[in-house]
Amino acid sequence: MQDSSITSIGIDFGGTSVKLGVCQGPDLIQMDEPIQTAAHPGPNALISEMAARVAKLRLSHPAIAAIGVGVPGLVDYDRGFVHELTNVPGWKHIPLKTILSEKTGLPCVVENDANAMCYAEWRHGAARGLRNVIALTLGTGVGGGLVLDNKMFRGSCFSAGEIGQMSIDCNGVAGHYGNLGALEKYIGNNQIAEHALQRYAEAGVSKGANDCTPKAISIAAQAGDEIARQIWAEIADWLGTALANIAWLLNPDAFVIGGGVALAGPLLFEPLERKVQSMLSTVVWEKLQILPAKFSNEAGIIGNAALAADALA
Amino acid sequence: MQDSSITSIGIDFGGTSVKLGVCQGPDLIQMDEPIQTAAHPGPNALISEMAARVAKLRLSHPAIAAIGVGVPGLVDYDRGFVHELTNVPGWKHIPLKTILSEKTGLPCVVENDANAMCYAEWRHGAARGLRNVIALTLGTGVGGGLVLDNKMFRGSCFSAGEIGQMSIDCNGVAGHYGNLGALEKYIGNNQIAEHALQRYAEAGVSKGANDCTPKAISIAAQAGDEIARQIWAEIADWLGTALANIAWLLNPDAFVIGGGVALAGPLLFEPLERKVQSMLSTVVWEKLQILPAKFSNEAGIIGNAALAADALA
Repeated sequence: MQDSSITSIGIDFGGTSVKLGVCQGPDLIQMDEPIQTAAHPGPNALISEMAARVAKLRLSHPAIAAIGVGVPGLVDYDRGFVHELTNVPGWKHIPLKTILSEKTGLPCVVENDANAMCYAEWRHGAARGLRNVIALTLGTGVGGGLVLDNKMFRGSCFSAGEIGQMSIDCNGVAGHYGNLGALEKYIGNNQIAEHALQRYAEAGVSKGANDCTPKAISIAAQAGDEIARQIWAEIADWLGTALANIAWLLNPDAFVIGGGVALAGPLLFEPLERKVQSMLSTVVWEKLQILPAKFSNEAGIIGNAALAADALA
Repeated sequence: MQDSSITSIGIDFGGTSVKLGVCQGPDLIQMDEPIQTAAHPGPNALISEMAARVAKLRLSHPAIAAIGVGVPGLVDYDRGFVHELTNVPGWKHIPLKTILSEKTGLPCVVENDANAMCYAEWRHGAARGLRNVIALTLGTGVGGGLVLDNKMFRGSCFSAGEIGQMSIDCNGVAGHYGNLGALEKYIGNNQIAEHALQRYAEAGVSKGANDCTPKAISIAAQAGDEIARQIWAEIADWLGTALANIAWLLNPDAFVIGGGVALAGPLLFEPLERKVQSMLSTVVWEKLQILPAKFSNEAGIIGNAALAADALA
C-alpha cells in the first residue's frame, strides 16, 4: 500500500467532461485534454474513448500499471460496477471495471467521486498520515467520504459518506429524500444564495442573485459587509452542527473541507472552528483538526490514481 | 478470531456493583456473586477483589484463558488504561490491564461498557454475522458502540460512539457539553418523564412522576392511552432522526437497540422503523435492520469475555 513509485492513471468522470492524468504518488505528472462527455454518447463510446486515451498516455509513460476511475454516482467498488449516474444519460448497470480492463489490459478500480477526493486528501493531501479522516466537498450538493482506521470506509452497500443528507434539524426543511433538516438544504450553493437574498431583503438591501453566490458573499464579507459576515457565521453554525455530530460518532483526527464554498477561507473556517469546539468535549475536540483541502480540481485524478496504485499492492 | 471454544471471564464494572461471569463463546456458563463497589473503596482494593474472584472461578474452570473488563468511562483500549470513571470515586489514571494481568497471570483487555455491549450483540447476539453494526443503549443516558468492517471501531482517542451527544436540532436543548440538540436531552429516561408530564398536563390529565417512567408510559400505551402512544411516536421521531443521520454517514447493516427504553418493544420499534425509512434513500434503507438487543444485563459480561477471547487469536 505504501509504494508511491507506481505510475497510474486517474480518471475523473464528471457530468460534462472526463478528466485524465498520469500520476506517480502525489505527483500529477501529465494531464491529458478532457474528454467531452456529450461528444461520446452512451457508455460504449465513452469507455472506448477512455481506453484510446489510456493507450496514448502509455506511449509516453510505459510504466503505467493501473487505472482508477471516479464516477458521480453509486458504485459497487468490489466489482467495479456502476449502478447509476443520475446526471449522465445511459449510464445504468455498467460493469465499467470489466470493460475498461478488457480494452486496456490494465487492472482498474472504480470509485465514487467523493470517496476518491477523500482518498486523495488522506493519501497525499491535507490529512496525510492521519488515521481517521472525514472529507467533505461543498458545492451545489454536499458530498463526503470516510477513511477509518487507515482504510476507505464504504458502508454495507457502498453508500457511506452522504453527509449532505444528514439532518441538522429534526423539524427542518425536507431534503431530496424527504429527510427533514438535510444539511445540503442549508449550505448547498443555491440554498446559500437564497438565504443571502432573504437576509439582505430583511435588512432592506437590494441585491441580485449574482451578488449572492458564495464567492460574492465572501468578497462582500472581506470588504466589511456585516450582513455577509453574519451569513458566513450562519453557514458555519449549520455545517458545524453536522461536523460535531460526526465527531461524537466517529472521534476522527480530521475533517478536510473542499469545494467552492470552502474557498471562503477564514470567513468560514474561523466561525466553524468555534462552533464545533462549542459542541464537543475536550477529549473529542483536543486533537481534532478542521483542514482546508490541499487539492481542488485535480483531487479526483490524484485520488483515483492512488486508489488504483494502492490496489496493486 | 472465530474460535468460540476459548473460556474467558467477562467483568462488567458498573457504578454500584461489579458483575463477573465465565463464558465460552456465546454461553455464560457461570455467574459469580456481584462485588459491591462501595465495599472495596479505591482501585487497589477493588482490583484485588476482582483478582480473588478470578482465582476462585479458575478452580472450577481451569481452562479460563483471558479476562475482559468493561468500565463506565473513557479507556485507552490499546494500553488497557482507565482515564476516568466519572461515577466511581478514585478511578482516575489507572493502568487496570497491567495490574489485573500481574495479579492473575492472565491476559486482560479493558473496554468501555457501551463498546462491550456492541461487541456482544455483533459477536453473539442480534447482529451476529453482520459487517457494520451500530449498537445503542437507551437509559438515563444514551450510549453507543460501533463495529465497522467487522472490527470494533474506537476512534482516534477511543471516544467514538457517543450517540447520546449527537444533535438532532441545531436550535435545540443544550446537552452536557453545551451541544445544542443533544439526543440524550430528548430520550434519556428523565427527559422522557419530564416530556410525558408536560404532555399530560397540556391535555389536562393529572399524572405523577411514577406514571411517567418509560415503563409506565408503555403500560399506558398498551392499555390504549392515546397520549402515551403519541409520546412513543415523538421518542421514535427523535431517535429516528439520529439513526437516519448515522445511516447516511455509515450505511450500516443494522442498529441494535438495548436498555430499558427499548423494552417498549413495538410501541417504539414500529414508529421508529417508519421514521427512519421516511428519512432514507432506498439504497441505504433496503438492507438496514433495526433490531432489539438479544442480551440485557448480561451483555457486558458476554461482550467483555468475547473481546478477551478474541484478543488471544
